[in-house]
Amino acid sequence: MTDQDYMKRAIELAKKGEGWTNPNPMVGAVIVKEGRIIGEGYHARCGELHAERNAIASLTESAEGATLYVTLEPCCHYGKTPPCTEAILEQKIKKVVIGSRDPNPKVAGKGAKILRDAGVTVVEDFMRDKCDELNPIFFHYITTKTPYVVMKYAMTLDGKIATKTGASKWITQEAARREVQYMRHRYMGIMVGIGTVLADDPMLNVRVEGLKSPVRIICDSKLRIPPDSQIVKSAREYRTIVAYADPENVEKKKEILQTMGVETVFCPDMKKHVNLKHLMEHLGKENIDSILLEGGGTLNDSALRAGVVQEVQAFIAPKIFGGTGSRTPVDGIGIELPSQAAVLKFKDICQIGEDLKITCQVLRKEQEESCLQEL
Amino acid sequence: MTDQDYMKRAIELAKKGEGWTNPNPMVGAVIVKEGRIIGEGYHARCGELHAERNAIASLTESAEGATLYVTLEPCCHYGKTPPCTEAILEQKIKKVVIGSRDPNPKVAGKGAKILRDAGVTVVEDFMRDKCDELNPIFFHYITTKTPYVVMKYAMTLDGKIATKTGASKWITQEAARREVQYMRHRYMGIMVGIGTVLADDPMLNVRVEGLKSPVRIICDSKLRIPPDSQIVKSAREYRTIVAYADPENVEKKKEILQTMGVETVFCPDMKKHVNLKHLMEHLGKENIDSILLEGGGTLNDSALRAGVVQEVQAFIAPKIFGGTGSRTPVDGIGIELPSQAAVLKFKDICQIGEDLKITCQVLRKEQEESCLQEL
Repeated sequence: MTDQDYMKRAIELAKKGEGWTNPNPMVGAVIVKEGRIIGEGYHARCGELHAERNAIASLTESAEGATLYVTLEPCCHYGKTPPCTEAILEQKIKKVVIGSRDPNPKVAGKGAKILRDAGVTVVEDFMRDKCDELNPIFFHYITTKTPYVVMKYAMTLDGKIATKTGASKWITQEAARREVQYMRHRYMGIMVGIGTVLADDPMLNVRVEGLKSPVRIICDSKLRIPPDSQIVKSAREYRTIVAYADPENVEKKKEILQTMGVETVFCPDMKKHVNLKHLMEHLGKENIDSILLEGGGTLNDSALRAGVVQEVQAFIAPKIFGGTGSRTPVDGIGIELPSQAAVLKFKDICQIGEDLKITCQVLRKEQEESCLQEL
Repeated sequence: MTDQDYMKRAIELAKKGEGWTNPNPMVGAVIVKEGRIIGEGYHARCGELHAERNAIASLTESAEGATLYVTLEPCCHYGKTPPCTEAILEQKIKKVVIGSRDPNPKVAGKGAKILRDAGVTVVEDFMRDKCDELNPIFFHYITTKTPYVVMKYAMTLDGKIATKTGASKWITQEAARREVQYMRHRYMGIMVGIGTVLADDPMLNVRVEGLKSPVRIICDSKLRIPPDSQIVKSAREYRTIVAYADPENVEKKKEILQTMGVETVFCPDMKKHVNLKHLMEHLGKENIDSILLEGGGTLNDSALRAGVVQEVQAFIAPKIFGGTGSRTPVDGIGIELPSQAAVLKFKDICQIGEDLKITCQVLRKEQEESCLQEL
């Protein structure tokens, strides 16, 4: 096995933590001595041991003189667990091969430096791109303190999310819908607009054994969410945050909702709509590092124009609905000139069952300022 | 080299005829003797020699005892050229390896039979799928006598073909637009609705050296096309067919158009709209085997609902426009229930420059009958 193989294994291990480590990163580690893997581990869950310490705990023999392959720079600070650099030095590991750099200001090169100063050979940026792909959420969250927002929608090949009569069940097939269940597990929060709640009365939970449900976030300017909606009725079971923006006549409703377990956040812009940028700052403080935005067209448009979206995941079904005025995934105010469009970059295209899943990074957010006024 | 390699070479050769052979198929042929390619050829242009005869013409030595690899069953009838089976027998070729079967009722197995009866070893269906991929147009046209229609459009990832103000220049980048020029060469006809002519006054020609321009077909129920439009003014240079459906007050306009070189076809349905099914039958009789449909949303919807579309090629730009009411690639009447949708199958997805090109086969056309009434 080569250095690449060991790091690939570490990446594989890291992925096992998907959906469970947030707001921590996914990290995998492999310890190798004389061509044999003598220990491996990954960060399994926020609050539990880091990958390096799990790998050390699994050692089948002394790691003295061994090489550690780890997908992210080892930490050097006391968080929920003691620094990994200490454990590495205690084990007399001789060489550490690191994938991603840790942008966390508490680490950011200090981990590597501590190891080097102690005489350990340190290789940085090894298969860095592949390792970086594990943690776009962590990198975004740790540097901006706001959640990494993934806009997700399903449409036909002619860009419709419903027929002209509003019928939308179903656009995609079973396999794609299962994938969406997994995405709800993957991200810490899920966000929709009040329109979706009033139209569909959804639960927005995960209905798959062994996966976790996200925190539910509802954008609801006038606090119209019905106390007998599924969301509110299940708010004691699944954490629920409702953001509102118009303070008029909401005191009583707010009290009812709070009694039922709903958290409310007052987050207005100048036009008494929800200020999404401020809401993201609030949610970041609440340790929500990532959000799956399953908005309707209006909320999707607002979120893009507010510049809070980092990724778009579009499912495309091999169907055509047609129909003037049929709803599309992003509508709302929109832009006037093609040159003002939100600019994306295709990152991944794959077929899931009969449907396509297109993953894009959002490149341009220059509109942020001018758009905020209109939200 | 293996049998597969020779057939791959024949397929490669066949593709050189792309856009020039219509309404004939693309065909390639390779003649091999004792492991050496001693002749190869392809059908270069309708009316010229078939692939087999071109391969024979290129022979560097006697083909006696040789093997012929040909992507399509050799013809056995007198068309514009004499039957290829005769030439194969004359050359004393010992073995013929065939890719596609020829659905042309004048051939359909008879070519293979003639060769076998004369003592030639014949292998059929060799790499048939790959060979069949060369000629969806020919297979459709020869069996239905109507053109193979490819609906092409370019949209943003949120399904828009223009911003809310109608601005649409440009959705895709240069590379995708170059590809569209090539598609106009590839198919014999190009079809748009009168709306596109009135809005954009396009030429619908090919502006690339060495490629040919398509026959222009305009769906124009009330014969509104302006005599000073680019299309009409250039009708002597590029063949132009205008289909109309409402006979009232059109005599004089028709005469003007005809004087300027435009062909007019009266092709009405019960509601005085163009009957697309009948129009396709007419165009088939005119030897037009394939059409690139660059319609606006209304014509695209009508064509899909009329069941005349065989393929969809959607270019998707990594952009989002948003905007309620922004135009989408297929609008018009549309369907009411998701279960009534036109059903497609993804055939190919590729990135062209920064854009995606998604090619789909149209699978279901059950709606044909009921929809025809409404067109």
